[in-house]
Amino acid sequence: MLKNYNFDDVDDRYDNFKRSNLGEEIDKLQRIVQRLKIPVLILIDGWESSGKGDIINDLTRELDPRYVKVELFDSRTDIDYLHPSVWRFWQKIPKHEEIVVFDQSFYSQVFNKDERSDDKLKQRTEELLNLEHMLLDDGTIVIKFFLHIQKDTQSENIAALEESKFRQFLLSDNDYEQNKHYDDYLDWFDKVLKKTDVPESPWNIINGEDRKLAAKTVLGITMEEITSGIERVSLARERTNMSNRNYQLEEAQLEQYDLTKTISDKEYDSVLEDLQKEAADLVYECFTKGIAIITAFEGVDAAGKGGAIQRLTRHIDPRSYRIYGIKAPTELENTYHYLWRFWNKFPKDGDMVIFDRTWYGRVLVERVEGFASESEWERAYDEINHTEKVLTDHGSIVMKFFMYIDEDEQEQRFEDRQEEPSKNYKITEDDWRNRKQWDNYVNAMEEMLDRTNTSNAPWYTIATNQKKYARVEVLKHFIKHIKVHLDNVKKVEDA
Amino acid sequence: MLKNYNFDDVDDRYDNFKRSNLGEEIDKLQRIVQRLKIPVLILIDGWESSGKGDIINDLTRELDPRYVKVELFDSRTDIDYLHPSVWRFWQKIPKHEEIVVFDQSFYSQVFNKDERSDDKLKQRTEELLNLEHMLLDDGTIVIKFFLHIQKDTQSENIAALEESKFRQFLLSDNDYEQNKHYDDYLDWFDKVLKKTDVPESPWNIINGEDRKLAAKTVLGITMEEITSGIERVSLARERTNMSNRNYQLEEAQLEQYDLTKTISDKEYDSVLEDLQKEAADLVYECFTKGIAIITAFEGVDAAGKGGAIQRLTRHIDPRSYRIYGIKAPTELENTYHYLWRFWNKFPKDGDMVIFDRTWYGRVLVERVEGFASESEWERAYDEINHTEKVLTDHGSIVMKFFMYIDEDEQEQRFEDRQEEPSKNYKITEDDWRNRKQWDNYVNAMEEMLDRTNTSNAPWYTIATNQKKYARVEVLKHFIKHIKVHLDNVKKVEDA
Repeated sequence: MLKNYNFDDVDDRYDNFKRSNLGEEIDKLQRIVQRLKIPVLILIDGWESSGKGDIINDLTRELDPRYVKVELFDSRTDIDYLHPSVWRFWQKIPKHEEIVVFDQSFYSQVFNKDERSDDKLKQRTEELLNLEHMLLDDGTIVIKFFLHIQKDTQSENIAALEESKFRQFLLSDNDYEQNKHYDDYLDWFDKVLKKTDVPESPWNIINGEDRKLAAKTVLGITMEEITSGIERVSLARERTNMSNRNYQLEEAQLEQYDLTKTISDKEYDSVLEDLQKEAADLVYECFTKGIAIITAFEGVDAAGKGGAIQRLTRHIDPRSYRIYGIKAPTELENTYHYLWRFWNKFPKDGDMVIFDRTWYGRVLVERVEGFASESEWERAYDEINHTEKVLTDHGSIVMKFFMYIDEDEQEQRFEDRQEEPSKNYKITEDDWRNRKQWDNYVNAMEEMLDRTNTSNAPWYTIATNQKKYARVEVLKHFIKHIKVHLDNVKKVEDA
Repeated sequence: MLKNYNFDDVDDRYDNFKRSNLGEEIDKLQRIVQRLKIPVLILIDGWESSGKGDIINDLTRELDPRYVKVELFDSRTDIDYLHPSVWRFWQKIPKHEEIVVFDQSFYSQVFNKDERSDDKLKQRTEELLNLEHMLLDDGTIVIKFFLHIQKDTQSENIAALEESKFRQFLLSDNDYEQNKHYDDYLDWFDKVLKKTDVPESPWNIINGEDRKLAAKTVLGITMEEITSGIERVSLARERTNMSNRNYQLEEAQLEQYDLTKTISDKEYDSVLEDLQKEAADLVYECFTKGIAIITAFEGVDAAGKGGAIQRLTRHIDPRSYRIYGIKAPTELENTYHYLWRFWNKFPKDGDMVIFDRTWYGRVLVERVEGFASESEWERAYDEINHTEKVLTDHGSIVMKFFMYIDEDEQEQRFEDRQEEPSKNYKITEDDWRNRKQWDNYVNAMEEMLDRTNTSNAPWYTIATNQKKYARVEVLKHFIKHIKVHLDNVKKVEDA
C-alpha cells in the first residue's frame, strides 16, 4: 500500500472545496449522525513529523468543536499497563452521536518498533481487528487515515520543527529513528496496513507532501465516508432481524444434573471456614503476583448467587476486590457499545472483581425479552469469547459460575421471600413474570453454556436445590481454578 | 484527643452484640439510606499496623458487600499528582444511596510525615475540611474513626506481620518509622485530629488494643451514627427552604455597560488571526510548563458564547484542550454532589478545558427555575469560591467570561435563528420561555458577578451587542490573563 506509492500522483479531488460551503455541509452531516445516534471514529496515523497535528486541527475546526473529542494516545501510563492493551481504547470509544478522533489510533501499537515481531504482531492485530469489527458491527462509522511522506520531506519537516521554541515537545527520538531507518519502517508499515485493511473501513493513504492539499483531502474523504457510513448503518439497522442462525444444541445439559445432591449441616460447618480462608489466601497470592481475577455469576432467579458470593468473600481482604451487581443498563451506558460498561469495570492487575450477573445478559435477558435483535445476540457469543480471550491472554483469571435450581425449588424460594418481611424487597413482579418464561430462559442458558464454555474461561455449573451444597461447590471450584492457574504460571516461569 | 488517652478504659458498650441480630439491624439501616438516597462515607484512619484491615473486613462483612465500596488511598499515582490533592477523593465520593469506606481517609494526607509543616498543614486542612463540609451540607453522613494503639502493641503487631508470607505487602517503612518515633507521631496525630474534629462528624477514637472489641465498637458506632445521621439529614431536608439571606447588591453592574461598542470589519480582520496565534502560543507555553487552564463561559442566551469559543480555539492544538457543553445534569450525575461532574472534567496539569456553561448553573438556572432550594444556592457562592481557590492554589489558571447583550438584541438574534434553516436547531421553546424570566436571570447574574469575582479567579464581563467586538475582547482578556500569570510564575521562580 505504501511501497510503490507514487507521490507525484496528486489527489486533487477536493482541491476546489470552498471552506464556507464545507463548514455548512459538515455541520449538516454532524447533525444527522447525532439525530440517528451513529458513533463516528476517525483514526489518524502516519509517519512521525508528517503533520498529523495540522491535519487534526483542520479537521476539527470544520467540525463543531463542542461535539468532537480528540483523544491522544501516546505512551501508555502506569494504569494502562495494568490492563490488556485494548483497555484504554475501550475507555475512549465514541458514544452513539459523538465524533471522536484518535490521534495515533489503536494500530499505532503495532506500528511501534517495540512490537515488531511476527508473533506479537499476529496476536495484537487480531485483538485490534476484533475491536474494530465489534465497533463496526455495533454501527460505528470508522474512518482510517495514514499520512504518508517521503524520506526527504520527513527530514525537512524535522529540521523545521527543530527551529520551534517548543521543539522538545514536538520532536522525540522516534522521529529521528524513523527517518534514519526509513526503508525498514516503510516495509513494516506496509505490512501492518495490509493486515488491518477492512472492507467496511479501508485505510486511506494520504499524500502528505502538500500539507494544505492533504488537509482538504482528509476533510473530503471524511465527509464522503460519513455519508456512505450513514447509508451502511441505516441499512444494517433495517436488516437487523434477518435470521441466518444455524445453531443446533447437541444435547440439553441442565436436565442431566442431579439436583438432589446435598451436604449435611455438620459437614458444611466443618469445611466452610477452611475453604474460605484458603480462597482468601489464594486471592492474596494473586494480588502479590499482579494477577487479576474476574469472577462471573449467572443463573436462574433465586438460585443463590448473592449468598454464594457472600460466603466466597467471607475472609477475603475487602480492599482487594469489588462486587458489581449488574442491572439494566443506565441511560448513559446505553449510549455506548454494550460491552463498554464491563470494560469500565474489569480489574487492574492484582485486583478481583465479582460480577453478580454479567455481559451474558446480552444472550439471556436481552435475548429472551427482545431487547437485543437476533443478529445482535447471535454475534454476541463470538464477541464475548473474544473479549474473555483478550483478558486471559493478558494473564487474568476468568471463571464463570452458572447456578441452577429447578422450577419447583424456585417457586418455593419465591414464596419464602414473599412471606419473610426482611427478604420481601428481594422479590418483585419481574421475578414472577420471568418465571413464566422459564423454558425460554433455560433454552437461552443451554445455548450460552454450550457456545461460551471455553478452555481459557470455563463455566462451572452449580446445579443443586440445596444452598449449602452450592456454596461449598463454588468455593471448591474457585480454589481449584486459581491453584491450577498459579501452577501453570509457575511452570512457565521455571521453564 | 490521643494524648492522655486511657487504654485501660475499655469501651464495652457493644460487647454484647449478637452477630445474627446485628446483621439484620444493619441490613435494615442500609435499606433506609438507600430508600432516602442518603450517601454514607466512613473514614478509617489510625496507626500503621493497628489492624485497620481487620476492622474494615468486619464492618463490610456485616453490611451487604454488594452495596458497599471500599476505596483504598495509599500513595498517589502519577495522574493524582497532576491534579489538586482533593481531586482523587472527589472521584470516589459516595452516590446518594451508597456506603463508601475510605481506607486511609483524606486526612491521611495530613497525617503523613511529608506534610508536617504548619503552613502546609493549615492549607491542606482547610481544603479537606471544606471538602468534608460540602459533603455534610449536601446531606452526606460522614463517620470518622481513628484506631489508636500503644507503642508496645504496635511493635507486637509488626512482629506478628513479619511472620506472614505476605509481609512485603503488609509492612512498609512507614510502620517502622512510626514505631521508632511513636511519641512524635502521637503529638502530630493529636494536633491533626483536633483541627479536623467537626461537630456533625467528630472523630471516634477507637481503643485498638483488643481487636475484636474494637471491631464491635466500630460496628456499633457506625449503626448509631447512621441512625442519628438519618435524622439530621431528614431534618435538614425539611428546613431547606428557611430564608436567612442578608445579601444586598451594592449597585447593578450590567446596566452600566455601554453595549454599543463596536469594531470595524476591517480592524477585526486585521487583528483576529494575530490574537488567535498569540493565544495558541500561550496555551502551548502553559502545556510545556504543566499549567492547567480552566476557561469558563457564562452569559445570557444567544450572547455568542459558541462563536467566541470557536474564535478563541481557532489556532490552538486540538490535542491540548477539550470543550464541554454543560447541560442539565444526567440521571447519574444527579446521584452525586452537584460539583462532582465538574471535578470529573477539570484538566490535568498542562491541559486546557473550556466550559460552555458551568458550575454557576447552580446560582443561575437552578436558582431561577427553582431546581435548587434557597439554602442550596445560597451556600453555593462559598462552595464555588472555595473550589476555584483549590484549583488556583494548585497552580491552575481559572478565568471566567460573562457575555452580555441586551433584551432587544437577544430578541433579534432569536428571530434570526428561527428564520435561518441552518441555525434553526439552536433555538427551542426553552429559550423563549427563559426570556420571560429576563429580570430574574439578570438579578441572579448580578449577584453571581458580585459574589464570585475573586482576585484568583476573576470574571471578565464582555458586554456588547456586536459579536465581533465580543470575540476580540475575549481573546484579549484571555491573552492578558495568561501573560500576567506566566510573569508571576517567573517572578516566583526567579526569587
